Amino acid sequence: MKIHNFYAGPSILPQYTIKNTADAILDFAGTGLSVMEVSHRSKEFVAVMDEAQALFKELLNIPDGYSVLFVGGGASTQFAMVPFNLFKKKAAYLNTGAWSKKAIKEAQYFGEIDVVASSENKLFNYIPKGYTIPEDADYFHITTNNTIYGTEIKYDMDSPVPLVADMSSDIFSRPVDISKYALIYGGAQKNLAPSGVTFVIVRDDILGKMDRYIPTMLNYQTHIDKGSMFNTPPVVPVFAALQTLQWLKQNGGIEAMHKTNEYKAGLLYNEIDRNSIFRATVVEQSDRSLMNICFVMKEGYEGLEKAFFDYATAEGMVGIKGHRSVGGFRASTYNAMPVDSIKALIKTMQDFESNNK
Amino acid sequence: MKIHNFYAGPSILPQYTIKNTADAILDFAGTGLSVMEVSHRSKEFVAVMDEAQALFKELLNIPDGYSVLFVGGGASTQFAMVPFNLFKKKAAYLNTGAWSKKAIKEAQYFGEIDVVASSENKLFNYIPKGYTIPEDADYFHITTNNTIYGTEIKYDMDSPVPLVADMSSDIFSRPVDISKYALIYGGAQKNLAPSGVTFVIVRDDILGKMDRYIPTMLNYQTHIDKGSMFNTPPVVPVFAALQTLQWLKQNGGIEAMHKTNEYKAGLLYNEIDRNSIFRATVVEQSDRSLMNICFVMKEGYEGLEKAFFDYATAEGMVGIKGHRSVGGFRASTYNAMPVDSIKALIKTMQDFESNNK
Repeated sequence: MKIHNFYAGPSILPQYTIKNTADAILDFAGTGLSVMEVSHRSKEFVAVMDEAQALFKELLNIPDGYSVLFVGGGASTQFAMVPFNLFKKKAAYLNTGAWSKKAIKEAQYFGEIDVVASSENKLFNYIPKGYTIPEDADYFHITTNNTIYGTEIKYDMDSPVPLVADMSSDIFSRPVDISKYALIYGGAQKNLAPSGVTFVIVRDDILGKMDRYIPTMLNYQTHIDKGSMFNTPPVVPVFAALQTLQWLKQNGGIEAMHKTNEYKAGLLYNEIDRNSIFRATVVEQSDRSLMNICFVMKEGYEGLEKAFFDYATAEGMVGIKGHRSVGGFRASTYNAMPVDSIKALIKTMQDFESNNK
Repeated sequence: MKIHNFYAGPSILPQYTIKNTADAILDFAGTGLSVMEVSHRSKEFVAVMDEAQALFKELLNIPDGYSVLFVGGGASTQFAMVPFNLFKKKAAYLNTGAWSKKAIKEAQYFGEIDVVASSENKLFNYIPKGYTIPEDADYFHITTNNTIYGTEIKYDMDSPVPLVADMSSDIFSRPVDISKYALIYGGAQKNLAPSGVTFVIVRDDILGKMDRYIPTMLNYQTHIDKGSMFNTPPVVPVFAALQTLQWLKQNGGIEAMHKTNEYKAGLLYNEIDRNSIFRATVVEQSDRSLMNICFVMKEGYEGLEKAFFDYATAEGMVGIKGHRSVGGFRASTYNAMPVDSIKALIKTMQDFESNNK
């Protein structure tokens, strides 16, 4: 049976990435050794790191003056790393979900936090608008895509203070005007690589202005100075990231991905809106995530939730259970998700509807 | 040509680990999906994490009251994590090399450091003895194996204060009396897994005594409470670690590894001591590392260094260049290193000696 991988993360990766990584686990770059057992200082691995950084910059069209880093610790470590490096007196945060809340909670240890707006009153099913970013904040932090709630900030906003974005789950899904951001970070385990590596895009001139102790490994400058090789980087995740970056380039880059992502999400949202027994949790079209599409049973059909889950599972759908705080279903449709899997899910929904009319 | 992998880290891993990881990159636990693209909350990956923790405890005979963690960030992050969690007024450190120095440098931000002894006066070519561990220190920190200098503390010392050990490069190489330690940590990329995961063995009762802010991800309790699943763990390195732990168990466990390691190191040190053109950098037998065997050209033969490197490289030896601060050669002989590779290096040394007499 064909498996359709809708996991929210770690999540579907291109077959190109999977095959090349499996090959390199057996024989890396003709060394006769596994990529797992080769020094990170070997010329073969240095070439991987260099190409990954260069392709990352090329694909995202990153301007001069920014560094690209590959570090460990996940986005959760960034929740502390951002304030360690940027927080002086006050920071502003937009609260759009569970990850925003964790970022806010961590930053509160550093001083005053201005939560400029929150969508918590409606279980985070929309992106707040019409707020003002305080001009005296050291930075303004947003989570561009909210995996749990299926909302996404699909535009690059103007900010009077340095804009910091957690793009863990939508990096490389749409073109981004990097120049509007001071810092972008994210765990790699959605559109890039297996878990274990965290990417950071940082404008160099925002650093070096702190008096506090910054733990060496939590200091962005440490990793900039050593080209992400201050300590041993996570070699397999970085190798896999490079494969995905190559695949992105071979497949038309981010513009092409964006077009396909809009097409795929459009198909699925249309079916959810049409289908008589499901409804989308995010009503506002402009707030709907292209990466995580959340839907629940329509009023009156709640009793069929488990039956649909079992039916979809039998049809090969994996990872479609919604997060426990939302319930229902979540189809994560990252770059590597083929249109065929979207169509298979739609057929499953349609067949289930017919069977239960 | 047969390749002999003497890299200091990332370094040689068992073929069992390499083959099983390559297989799981293509199809993990019969899911039809890559281990790189499966949720860390899936029952298949939860089983991996559970078995890895259980086997880790079993193989090292870890007593009750200790937790085993798998986290990101490398041992370099532990250099800060240890004082964040344990440092109140004063800590004691033994300075046996580059890694000790980095750990000391980081801890100095937290207050008074008592460096009880150092071997820096002789380029760290011995392990200091006869020092006194201050009874008023919050903990005493040692680096049990010094990859760069080839020295090793091959015994479990008594300490009047909590003993903290960086065992990055000799964990699983010899039986350890865990009960003598309060905390043991290390990067996995020597005897365990590819880089990207860090292991921690911590006695639970030493934690929870701090008033300071501890960044959530740098707080051991965070990871204990969530069984190393507070955030997405590095799935491929953890999967690979489990394979190595299984391999260790199948091959007689740590006692058997220790016996083989003593045999392998004995062969190579004997040849270095016998050979007329090389000498070991570590003279004291009891201080010689079983994992990293450093040797340089004997007086009068310095001019042959490059010639030997080229000759050994042509014979299939990889990663034998000594660290730039020591020069000469370093053969890293971790658990997975076959006796045949040791013998091949010995033959290379003997042939080179014959050719240059």
